[in-house]
Amino acid sequence: MNKGKKQSITHHSLDGTHHPSPITHHSLDRTQNTEHVDAHIDHPNGVVWHPGQVSHGDRCHLLGQKGIVLWLTGLSGSGKSTIAVETERRLIEMGKLCYRLDGDNLRHGLNNDLGFSPEERKENIRRVAEVAALFADAGLITLVSFIAPYRDMRRFARERIGADRFIEIYVKATVEACKKRDPKGLYKMAESGVIEQFTGVNAPYELPENPDVILDTESMSLEQCVRLVLQTIRDHIELTGE
Amino acid sequence: MNKGKKQSITHHSLDGTHHPSPITHHSLDRTQNTEHVDAHIDHPNGVVWHPGQVSHGDRCHLLGQKGIVLWLTGLSGSGKSTIAVETERRLIEMGKLCYRLDGDNLRHGLNNDLGFSPEERKENIRRVAEVAALFADAGLITLVSFIAPYRDMRRFARERIGADRFIEIYVKATVEACKKRDPKGLYKMAESGVIEQFTGVNAPYELPENPDVILDTESMSLEQCVRLVLQTIRDHIELTGE
Repeated sequence: MNKGKKQSITHHSLDGTHHPSPITHHSLDRTQNTEHVDAHIDHPNGVVWHPGQVSHGDRCHLLGQKGIVLWLTGLSGSGKSTIAVETERRLIEMGKLCYRLDGDNLRHGLNNDLGFSPEERKENIRRVAEVAALFADAGLITLVSFIAPYRDMRRFARERIGADRFIEIYVKATVEACKKRDPKGLYKMAESGVIEQFTGVNAPYELPENPDVILDTESMSLEQCVRLVLQTIRDHIELTGE
Repeated sequence: MNKGKKQSITHHSLDGTHHPSPITHHSLDRTQNTEHVDAHIDHPNGVVWHPGQVSHGDRCHLLGQKGIVLWLTGLSGSGKSTIAVETERRLIEMGKLCYRLDGDNLRHGLNNDLGFSPEERKENIRRVAEVAALFADAGLITLVSFIAPYRDMRRFARERIGADRFIEIYVKATVEACKKRDPKGLYKMAESGVIEQFTGVNAPYELPENPDVILDTESMSLEQCVRLVLQTIRDHIELTGE
C-alpha cells in the first residue's frame, strides 16, 4: 500500500524496460479503434465517443455469464427489494457477479437532488436506466428494484438497455395488500399527508402491459418468487457452475 | 430463450417443490439485515436505505480483486482516454474485471442533459463520482477518464468513493502540447469560437495539488504510462493471476 505517496515519471523503469519516446499525436491514436481515427463530432459541443478495445462479449466471457438487467417494478411494499436482495445473495453464492440498484438507495446518492414530481420521477428512472445499461455492458447481472410508475419510462429503459438484455418483472400486489403490510409505515404517512405524491395513494402507478415475468406476492412465497427469477435468468443466459 | 414469453405464477413448481405460503409482512422482512427491521426514515420523503445480504468483500472475493476507482484527470488531449483504453485492455487480458467511465461517452447517455457551464460541469462530475462509487462497490476496477477541472469536485469524488478506494492520476501535458496534438480538432474549434467554455482555452483547469500518480505524457510513452498505472493498481490491490 503506497496510497498517498506521490508517484511520478521516475517510477517508469519499475519493470526494467525503458521506453523513451513521449506520447505524441501518433502514439495517442494508436490504441483507438479505426473508427475513432476519423471520429466525427456527434455532440453539440465537440464531444466525441471514445471506443474501447474491450467488447461486451470479452467481459461476459471473462465472467462466464451475460450482462443483463432485471427490472422489478411494482408498488412500494410489493416486495421488489426483498426479492432482489435474496436473488442477489443466491447469485453470488453461485459465483455469478450481480449488482443491485435500488430506488431508495440511489436516492441517497446519484439521485439525491430529485424529488417526487412527475418530471423528477422520470429523471430518476432515466438516470437509473442509463446506469443499469452501463452495468449490463460491464457484464453484470443487474437487479433494478424501482417503482418506475410510468409505462413510457419503462419502455425507455428497455430501449436504452437493449431489448435482448432487459427483463421486466412485475412485482404484483394490490394497494390494499401493500397498505396492510406497510413495513416502513409509509402508507400511513402518505394517507395522513406527511408524505406527498406517494405511488398508489396520491400518485399513479401505470400497470405493466406485457411484463416478461409476473410475481404475484399475494399468492407466491418469497422462495417461489426468487426461484422464478433465477429460472428466468437461466433461460436468458444459461447459468453455469451451479 | 423465452424472452417475450410471459411467465407467471404457474411456473412456480419448476423446481419440483411447492411453497404455498404467500409473501407476508413477516416473509418480506426475513431477508433484511437486522438494522433494516427498525430502519429509520432518513430521507425527507420516507426513502429508506435497503441493505443487502452481499458485502463489498463478498464481491471482491468472488472476483479475486478489489473494487477501486482510478480517476484520470487532465486537459482534453492530454491522453486520459488513450491510457484508460489501453489499461482496460491489459487488465481484461489479465482476467481482471474493469470498466471504463469516459467523460465524453457519459455525455451521450447519463449526462446528455448537461452543458458546459460551471454548474453543469460540477453536476457532470458529481454524477460520475456516484456511478464510479457504485462500480467500485460492485468490485470492479473502475477507470474514470474525465477532465474534472475543479479541485473541489475531485475532492468530492474522493470523499464519496472513499479515500481507500480512490486513486487520483494527473495526466499532465501543457495546453501548448495538447493544442499541438489536437487529435479531434477541438482546440482549433475552441479558439475560433465554435466551441465555448473549452477547458484550457476559455474555461479553467485547476491543477491537482496532491495527485497519487502523475503521468507526464510529454516525456513518457503510452507504454510507460500504462505500466505505471498497472503498477499502481498492483500496489493497491495486489493483483494476482498475471
